[in-house]
Amino acid sequence: MKTETQIDSPAPGSTPAPPRIRVVDTDVHHNIKGKEDLYPYLSRVERERLVEYGLPRNTGLYQANGGWKGARADVFDAGEEVDPRSNFEMFQRKLLDACGIDIAILQVELTPSLVALADIDYSYSLVRAINDWSLEHWVAKDPRYRLSITVPLQDPVVAVKEIERLGDHPSVVAIYGVCGSARLYGKREYDQVYAACVERGLSFALHFSNEGFGMNPPPTAAGYPSYYAETYLVRPQFYQAHLSSFLFEGTFEKFPQLKVIFCESGFGWVPSFRWRADAAWKELRWQTPWVKKLPSEYIEEHIRFSTQPFEESNPPEAVDQIVSWMNGAKTLMYSSDFPHWDFDPPDVVPKRLGAEVRRRILADNALAAYPKLAGLAGS
Amino acid sequence: MKTETQIDSPAPGSTPAPPRIRVVDTDVHHNIKGKEDLYPYLSRVERERLVEYGLPRNTGLYQANGGWKGARADVFDAGEEVDPRSNFEMFQRKLLDACGIDIAILQVELTPSLVALADIDYSYSLVRAINDWSLEHWVAKDPRYRLSITVPLQDPVVAVKEIERLGDHPSVVAIYGVCGSARLYGKREYDQVYAACVERGLSFALHFSNEGFGMNPPPTAAGYPSYYAETYLVRPQFYQAHLSSFLFEGTFEKFPQLKVIFCESGFGWVPSFRWRADAAWKELRWQTPWVKKLPSEYIEEHIRFSTQPFEESNPPEAVDQIVSWMNGAKTLMYSSDFPHWDFDPPDVVPKRLGAEVRRRILADNALAAYPKLAGLAGS
Repeated sequence: MKTETQIDSPAPGSTPAPPRIRVVDTDVHHNIKGKEDLYPYLSRVERERLVEYGLPRNTGLYQANGGWKGARADVFDAGEEVDPRSNFEMFQRKLLDACGIDIAILQVELTPSLVALADIDYSYSLVRAINDWSLEHWVAKDPRYRLSITVPLQDPVVAVKEIERLGDHPSVVAIYGVCGSARLYGKREYDQVYAACVERGLSFALHFSNEGFGMNPPPTAAGYPSYYAETYLVRPQFYQAHLSSFLFEGTFEKFPQLKVIFCESGFGWVPSFRWRADAAWKELRWQTPWVKKLPSEYIEEHIRFSTQPFEESNPPEAVDQIVSWMNGAKTLMYSSDFPHWDFDPPDVVPKRLGAEVRRRILADNALAAYPKLAGLAGS
Repeated sequence: MKTETQIDSPAPGSTPAPPRIRVVDTDVHHNIKGKEDLYPYLSRVERERLVEYGLPRNTGLYQANGGWKGARADVFDAGEEVDPRSNFEMFQRKLLDACGIDIAILQVELTPSLVALADIDYSYSLVRAINDWSLEHWVAKDPRYRLSITVPLQDPVVAVKEIERLGDHPSVVAIYGVCGSARLYGKREYDQVYAACVERGLSFALHFSNEGFGMNPPPTAAGYPSYYAETYLVRPQFYQAHLSSFLFEGTFEKFPQLKVIFCESGFGWVPSFRWRADAAWKELRWQTPWVKKLPSEYIEEHIRFSTQPFEESNPPEAVDQIVSWMNGAKTLMYSSDFPHWDFDPPDVVPKRLGAEVRRRILADNALAAYPKLAGLAGS
């Protein structure tokens, strides 16, 4: 039986293959040190507004997060007062080097607070600034980084503008959107966004945040949870709502190449959701005849789930069954969520799943989920 | 090995036990024929308002349901124009007799449209009328019926009044509430409702409906789904939000005797929810120190799940694993949802689960979940 290392060794005498990508981290959160970082990217009027009013905030509802200020306690290398998400050198050392990450997809911490504003022009100014800053100060400085660009999905027309502006940059691999939204993302007004993505080989990375913030409806059908633990528990709902919308609006019939990445959605809910969706489609599909296939087929083809927080099942081996039922060998992709408190290192993916499945979850599935990473896939 | 029949036979020479309850149906939906049925229970002013404006409706959002007008196609015995939910004789024949139901818990179809009104006095007048009508025209006419009384949970103070008015009726076994609500049901203002329930041996039966209707927030954190299939898929979310609230507000520490029945919530999501809740509690419980036990322990003790629609897993046997992980032998209770289109007969509970587990799901768990049914439990 081959070991994992032996599988990766080139055969004697063969042409050296490009170095195999062993770990892709699909959800990493960097950030600016402060609003001053954005000044060089703004017009005078925009800059003065930012100076005067400060950055918008979307964290007012909840008193406390996990860990220390929401992050791992050991990442405050530059002191308590410096957001560890802004510490470029610490990321290289404690994430990329320490965990052997070959490719890390950056999704900036600041995004949610910028994309729920009613003033779409000011929102878009800040979005342009954060994207340009990320490319210049993070992506350009380490070849391991790729970027999901922030797009102001509260107005799909403006979101398309940003995709047209930056979508052809070789290191931009996805657009980054949040679940909180005035409208579900399967609605037709978003088709122009997906057309722009597919044209440029971009995937759509969806992450919780902004539910109940700004112009968006409350997080649940019965309003606002009181505590952070509740918000943690209701998160999978945000993705399920958009997934239902994608499926029955026919998004994947219209965009057969589109991949949607569910970042930090959890995945324990996926098998039962697939079963329920298939049952609903069988009984009700006369109402949505443009949905041609079983929902589970669309999910398996189009949705990819980042692993963090990896399910802590009881018994521990139960998660293996979940992975099997959802075809996790194809649909799961490792993510660390660095530097957040509930960070997962690559070895969170259990060895029990076998070397082949682990390799897919740690790297190969991601290389296939972002068209612009496909060239990095080994033999 | 004993067969199911042998288990139920009394030993020779023993005192005859009361006839064993073999099937309890925990979610049955009767209804009035029309608004005229409520006139005898209303004051002149209320009656005139009902005559003039008609009943409120909460079904405007969705164009179509499943089946025929949302019901089984074969239950329109009194003609197309008569709501089969109002056909008392047909219920006896096609549900109680045909399916061997010993006890059926009625939860009236009309409830949702009555309990989302801002005018709490008029809402409460209609609620009193529907409860009195149900007791007189259904419960009093067949000893197999029990009633979950409708309560106007949009105002917990008024809800308590109705519990005080009817909660001691021997056939009233629960209060009936809907998931759509301006506030989550773990919030402290509902404690008075649970105190009133526990005092009278009533459980709390929670059923989807009214999300996004009247004064309530939209069904999802991103607004309104377009199609019925989507609403079908997002339903488990409504229960998960309230469950998160019950758990972390400490409802079950305050009311250790309270049982909450999740009607038509599905149950495929329960194991992964339990795992996630336990993980969240371990990391975050310093924020809610009144939550003393693992969430999975509270769920197993306090939440009961009605089976319809029984999970159609793939492979079919996967559901057995789900039942095992959630301790369904203790927490699942059969329901038919008669006469709705996605009705389940008692034999939906798979024989694979074994005679003992089937007996519990079909009857014993329900007899334990409603304090007023406890006297019916056999040896």
